[in-house]
Amino acid sequence: MAKDSFLVGLIGAGIGPSLSPALHEREADRQGLRYLYRRIDIDALGLRPEAVGDLVRAARDLGFDGLNITHPCKQLVIEHLDALAPQAEALGAVNSVVFEDGRSVGHNTDVTGFAAAFARGLPDAALERVVQLGAGGAGAAVAHAMLTLGAGRVTVVDALADRAVDLAAALNRHFGVGRAVAAGPDRLAGLIARADGVVHATPTGMAAHPGLPFSAESLRPGLWVAEVVYRPLETELLRAARAVGCAVLDGGGMAVFQAVDAFRLFTGREPDSLRMLRDFAELGGVVESSAGPVV
Amino acid sequence: MAKDSFLVGLIGAGIGPSLSPALHEREADRQGLRYLYRRIDIDALGLRPEAVGDLVRAARDLGFDGLNITHPCKQLVIEHLDALAPQAEALGAVNSVVFEDGRSVGHNTDVTGFAAAFARGLPDAALERVVQLGAGGAGAAVAHAMLTLGAGRVTVVDALADRAVDLAAALNRHFGVGRAVAAGPDRLAGLIARADGVVHATPTGMAAHPGLPFSAESLRPGLWVAEVVYRPLETELLRAARAVGCAVLDGGGMAVFQAVDAFRLFTGREPDSLRMLRDFAELGGVVESSAGPVV
Repeated sequence: MAKDSFLVGLIGAGIGPSLSPALHEREADRQGLRYLYRRIDIDALGLRPEAVGDLVRAARDLGFDGLNITHPCKQLVIEHLDALAPQAEALGAVNSVVFEDGRSVGHNTDVTGFAAAFARGLPDAALERVVQLGAGGAGAAVAHAMLTLGAGRVTVVDALADRAVDLAAALNRHFGVGRAVAAGPDRLAGLIARADGVVHATPTGMAAHPGLPFSAESLRPGLWVAEVVYRPLETELLRAARAVGCAVLDGGGMAVFQAVDAFRLFTGREPDSLRMLRDFAELGGVVESSAGPVV
Repeated sequence: MAKDSFLVGLIGAGIGPSLSPALHEREADRQGLRYLYRRIDIDALGLRPEAVGDLVRAARDLGFDGLNITHPCKQLVIEHLDALAPQAEALGAVNSVVFEDGRSVGHNTDVTGFAAAFARGLPDAALERVVQLGAGGAGAAVAHAMLTLGAGRVTVVDALADRAVDLAAALNRHFGVGRAVAAGPDRLAGLIARADGVVHATPTGMAAHPGLPFSAESLRPGLWVAEVVYRPLETELLRAARAVGCAVLDGGGMAVFQAVDAFRLFTGREPDSLRMLRDFAELGGVVESSAGPVV
C-alpha cells in the first residue's frame, strides 16, 4: 500500500505569515492524503538558529517525513544532514530536508522553484545578458536558477561589494569561468541599458521596504523584469515595468513552485501546480500571478 | 476559529501493532479534523526508555498537541512534565500528555478508560468484594478504576508478593484504609469463592502467554469476570467464564475508552465512543466487544 500519511514542518524565525502550510495542506487534501504541516518558529520557541540541528534530528525521530528550512537556518542546517542534492550542495543552502529510512537529505527548491516559475512565466525571454540585483540568500538561489536555465552571463550587483564578488566566484566555480561577474551599484544603469533582463532579489518593494530598487528611468520596452518579492505581489518595480511595456514575472511563481517541488519531494506524488497557483492567489488575496494564468 | 488540526504521537517500545493511531484518526476523520497520529518507537529508534523526557520536550517544540505514553515509559515520563492530573498523580503513571500553551500535563486514561468500559459493560455488577489478579502497571490502573467506581474492597493477588503489598498500600493511602489488601496466589481459590467478581490483569491469555490464569473450577454462575487482555479479545478465561454463565467484560472496552478519553483530552471534542468501539472490532477482526453492543 502506498504511503498516504505525511508529517511536514517549517523551521525558521518569524514564520507566522508563511503560506506554505496552507499551500501544502490544500494540495494534499485534494489528493486524498493525510497531511499535516506544522510551523516550528525558533523565535517563538526562544531558540537560537544553531538549534536547527537538534530540531531536525528530533523531527526525524518523531516521525516527520520532511521539513522546509528558512531564514536564518538554510546554511546552518547543512552540517547536520546526511547528504545533499546537487543544487543544495552547489548553493550551500538547503530549504527542504527529506527523511528517507532514517537518513536526512538536503535539497533546495528555491533554485528549482524559481527556474520552473521563470520557464513558465517568461518562456521566450532572451537570456544572453542578465543583471541581477541582490546577492543574499534569495539572490544566490535565483542566480543559480538563471544559469541552470542557460543564461549566458549574470552580472551580480549588491550594495555589499564582497557579497557580490563571493557569489560571482561561487557561480563561476560551478557553472564555468565567465558565466558570472560582480559589479557595484554605481554601474547599474549602464548594465541594465545593455541587458536582456533584470532579476530583482533584494527586499525593496516589500511592505516594510517600500520604493523602487533602481530608477524607473532604466526601464525600457523589450527588457524583462523578474521579481523575487511576493508580498505584495505587485511591487512598485513591477508596476513601473508594466507601465513601460516590459514583460514581467512576479514573485508568486517562485513562492508557489518551491512549494510544488517540496511537495513532490516529501510525498513522491506529482502536485498540480496550476491548482497551487490558484490557492496562492486566493490565500494572498490577489487575482492573478504573472507566473501563469490563474483561472 | 476553533482549532481543527491535531498532531499526536505514541511513545513506547514495540508499539507497531498498536491500534491507537487508527482509532484516533478514524474518529477525527469523521469529525472533519486534520489529525495525524505517529508511532514513536524507542526500540526502532535505538533509544533507551530514559530518552522519553527528551522526546516529550521535542514533541512540544515541534508542534505536537499531545502524546500517548506506554511501556516502558509511563513512570519515567513523570519527572519531565509540568503538571499531573489527579488520577495520574495518584497512580504514579501517565499514559497521556497534553501540551497547553507550552506546558505539559500528564493524565492517565487507562484509569478513566477502564472505569468507563466497566460502567458500560457490567453496569449492574456487585462491587462489595473484588479480587484482582495482577499488580503490574495495568493492574494498578484498573485497581484505581475499581475503587473509583466504588468497590468496597479490592484484594490484590500477584505472584510477586512485594508488588501486591506495595499496590495495596498505595491504594489505601489514596482511597482510605481497608479498601485494598494484598494476598498470595495460594489463597486465590478461597478469595474467588467469596468474591462478587474477578478482574484479570496479567498477560496470561495473550497469544504469547496462552492458558488460564487460574483454574476454571473457581468460576461459578453469579461471579463476574473482567479481562484486561484484548489480544485476543476472547481469552481462554472469558471463554471458560461464559461457559459457566458468568457476566464478562473483555479487554476491548478499556483499549477503546482509554483512546476515547485521550482523544477528548487532545482535541477538546467529544468522540463518539460507539463508533470507536465499532472501529476497534473492525480493526481487530472481531465482531463484538462485551463492553457494549457493536451495531
